[in-house]
Amino acid sequence: LASKLPQVGTTIFTVMSALAAEHNAVNLGQGFPDFACDPALVDAVTAAMQAGHNQYPPMTGVPALREAVSAKIEALHGRRYDPASEITITAGATQAIITAILAVVHPGDEVIVLDPCYDSYVPNIELAGGRAVRVPLTPGSFRPDFGKISAAITPHTRAILINSPHNPSATVWSAEDMQALQDLLAPTDILLISDEVYEHMVFDGGQHQSAARFAGLAARAFIVSSFGKTFHVTGWKVGTVAAPAALTAEFRKVHQFNVFTVNTPVQHGLASYLKDPAPYLQLPAFYQAKRDLFREGLAGSRLKLLPSTGSYFQCVDISAVSDLNESDFCQWLTREIGVAAIPLSAFYGDGFDQRVVRFCFAKKDDTLRAALERLRKL
Amino acid sequence: LASKLPQVGTTIFTVMSALAAEHNAVNLGQGFPDFACDPALVDAVTAAMQAGHNQYPPMTGVPALREAVSAKIEALHGRRYDPASEITITAGATQAIITAILAVVHPGDEVIVLDPCYDSYVPNIELAGGRAVRVPLTPGSFRPDFGKISAAITPHTRAILINSPHNPSATVWSAEDMQALQDLLAPTDILLISDEVYEHMVFDGGQHQSAARFAGLAARAFIVSSFGKTFHVTGWKVGTVAAPAALTAEFRKVHQFNVFTVNTPVQHGLASYLKDPAPYLQLPAFYQAKRDLFREGLAGSRLKLLPSTGSYFQCVDISAVSDLNESDFCQWLTREIGVAAIPLSAFYGDGFDQRVVRFCFAKKDDTLRAALERLRKL
Ligand SMILES: CSCCC(=O)C(=O)O
Ligand SMILES: CSCCC(=O)C(=O)O
Repeated sequence: LASKLPQVGTTIFTVMSALAAEHNAVNLGQGFPDFACDPALVDAVTAAMQAGHNQYPPMTGVPALREAVSAKIEALHGRRYDPASEITITAGATQAIITAILAVVHPGDEVIVLDPCYDSYVPNIELAGGRAVRVPLTPGSFRPDFGKISAAITPHTRAILINSPHNPSATVWSAEDMQALQDLLAPTDILLISDEVYEHMVFDGGQHQSAARFAGLAARAFIVSSFGKTFHVTGWKVGTVAAPAALTAEFRKVHQFNVFTVNTPVQHGLASYLKDPAPYLQLPAFYQAKRDLFREGLAGSRLKLLPSTGSYFQCVDISAVSDLNESDFCQWLTREIGVAAIPLSAFYGDGFDQRVVRFCFAKKDDTLRAALERLRKL
Repeated sequence: LASKLPQVGTTIFTVMSALAAEHNAVNLGQGFPDFACDPALVDAVTAAMQAGHNQYPPMTGVPALREAVSAKIEALHGRRYDPASEITITAGATQAIITAILAVVHPGDEVIVLDPCYDSYVPNIELAGGRAVRVPLTPGSFRPDFGKISAAITPHTRAILINSPHNPSATVWSAEDMQALQDLLAPTDILLISDEVYEHMVFDGGQHQSAARFAGLAARAFIVSSFGKTFHVTGWKVGTVAAPAALTAEFRKVHQFNVFTVNTPVQHGLASYLKDPAPYLQLPAFYQAKRDLFREGLAGSRLKLLPSTGSYFQCVDISAVSDLNESDFCQWLTREIGVAAIPLSAFYGDGFDQRVVRFCFAKKDDTLRAALERLRKL
C-alpha cells in the first residue's frame, strides 16, 4: 500500500501529550485549556438537546449561529458577511482549512505557506494535488518578509495561507503587515486563507487585524476561526469560515461531501451563548494575566523569553540552558523536569532548529505555578 | 475561479427538504428521524460535559468508545478489531468515507461504485484525483451483477465501494453476495470501502452481512458505520471506521489533518450508552413496524411497492400514477400533494430514470399516517 502522505507520522501534539501523561509531566505542550468552560455554555447545549435539536441541521450550519457569527464580525471589523451565502459552520478550524484547500487548489497548483506553520497545512495542500511553497518568516522576529513572499509567487500560485495571531511564534501581524499583503496580492488573483483561530487573544491593547478589515484581502479570503479556542472547548470541534459568496459556493461543494454538516445541539448552544459578547471581549485580559504570570515566573531563569503578543503560547530560547536540539530538549524536559513543551522545529518543513520551544499558558494558574516551580530548577 | 467540482450543486436532500418546508409538506425525503432519541443518551452527553470532557480527545477517538465499538463488532460478527490500532471515530460516516478515499486513492486510480449510490462517493473520488467507474446494479432488482463488476476491473482499480443495507434501494446483500465479492477480489489487491450505516435495520429476520464476517473482505476493508442513524441523532455527526492496522494507519494520517478529532462529550456519552446493547438490538423490530405501517397504507394505491428488506427507505414505482419523470414527480408531489420524496435518478451518474422514488419511513407513526392520507389521493 503506497502512502498518500509518506512523510506524515503522528502529530507532535499527540506524541508530546502521550509522553507527558506517561511521565506525569505538567502538559504545556498541546494547545488546550485545562480549565472548565462557562457552565452556561454546557447548559445551552443541554437545552438544545432536550429541545430535540438532534437531527441534521442545514448543511451550511444552523441559521441562528451563522447570523451570530456575521453580527460578531461586523461589530468587530466593520464588514458585513451575508449569513446565507457567506458564512459556513465547520467541524473545527482544521476541517475548514482542508475544505478551503480542496475547494480551490487544483493538481499542480502552488500554495505559499509561511514557515513555521501549523502541521496540517502542507499535508492538506498535498492531498489536493497541490505543492506547498514554504517561505520562512524572518528568524528571530518571525516577521513576514514580503520580498521573499513576492519572490515565491509564480503563475502557478493559487493561494497563500497566513495565520495571525501566530502559532507557534505568538506574534501578531500589524495593520501595516496586512496592508503590505493586500498591496502585494492586488495585481494577482491569488486567494488568501487566513487562519485566525486565536483572534480573541491579542495582548497589551493590540488589535487583531482580521483580513475582514481589508477590502482587498476580504474579497479573496477564506477567514477561518474556531469556537473551541475562544470558549475553552477544544473538544467540541466547531469552527467557521467567512468568505465572499463565490468562494463560499465552492467551499460548500466540498464541505457537503466532507462532513456534510456539524453537531446540531452544539451549534444551537453556541448561537444562544454568542448573544452576549462579554465572554470573548474578556478574553484578552484573561489570557494576558496568564501570560504575565508565566513570564514573571521565568523572568529570573536562563530560559530567555521571546515576546508573546498574541495566541496562548509563549516561546523561549533554550540555548543558555541546554546543548540539546529542540526536540531532544522537549523530550528531556518532559521526562526529567516534568514539563512538556513543543519544539518549534516541528513546524518547519526542513526541521530548522533555532533553539526555541513553545509553552502553552492556557492553563489554570495552579498548573502554571506547578510548571514554573519545576522549570526554575533549570 | 475554476470549480473543482463543476457538476456539483446543492445535494438533492437539501433541495427537497427546503421545498418541503416551503410547501408545508410531510418530509419523507431526506433520511432522518423526526422523533426524539432516548433521553438517556442526552443525559449521558450532558453528564460528560458536566464532568469536564470538553477538550481534545485522542485523535483516534475516546478509548472507551473505540473499545465499545470493537466489542460490538466482535459480539455481532465474530471478528476482533484492536481498539488501539484498528478502530477510529469519525465526524459521521460521510467524513469516514472521504477520509478513506483520500488515504488510499492516488491520482489516476479508479474506484468502482455501484449505481445508484450515495451522492458523496463520486465527488469524494474526484477530489482525491481518482476516477469513479460506475457499474449499475441490475435494474428492477438492484442486485449486484458480478460479471459487470468483474468486467470493470482494470490494473488501475484501487478500490470498490459497496453499501448494504442499500440507500436508496432498500435492498440487502446476502451472504452469497458477499462471498461472491470476496471470491472476485481474492486474486487482486483491490481495497473495499463498505458503507454499513444501516447495519441495524435489516427486516424479516434477515442478517446484516457485514464485511467483518468475511475474512478475505475484512483484510482489505474500511468498514464504515454511523451512530447518527443507529441512535436517532443524525445531527450529532459521529461515525466509525474499522480497518486492519495498516489501512487504519493510512486512514489516520488523513483523518488527523481533516478534522483531527471528534466531539468529546458526545463520544463519552455514546461510550456509556453502548454498554447496553438493547437500543440497537431492538432497531430491526422498531423500524420493521414502521415499514409495515407505511406499506400497508399504500397497499391499495397505484403506487407500486418495491421490496424493502433493509435501511429506513421504501421505494415505489410511480408509473401507474404519473407520466412525469422522477424528479418532476417529486417536485409535484411535494407542492401539490404535500409529501416530499427523493427521485432515484439523483443517485445515478447518468440520471437514469426508472420511474421509482424513495420515501423515508424513519418518522413518527403520526407523520407516516399524515403522509399516507395525502398519498391515498393519488
Ligand atoms: C489539534 S492538537 C494541537 C492543538 C494546537 O493547536 C497546538 O497545540 O498547536
Ligand atoms: C446527509 S443528508 C442525507 C441523508 C441521507 O442519508 C439520505 O437521505 O440518503
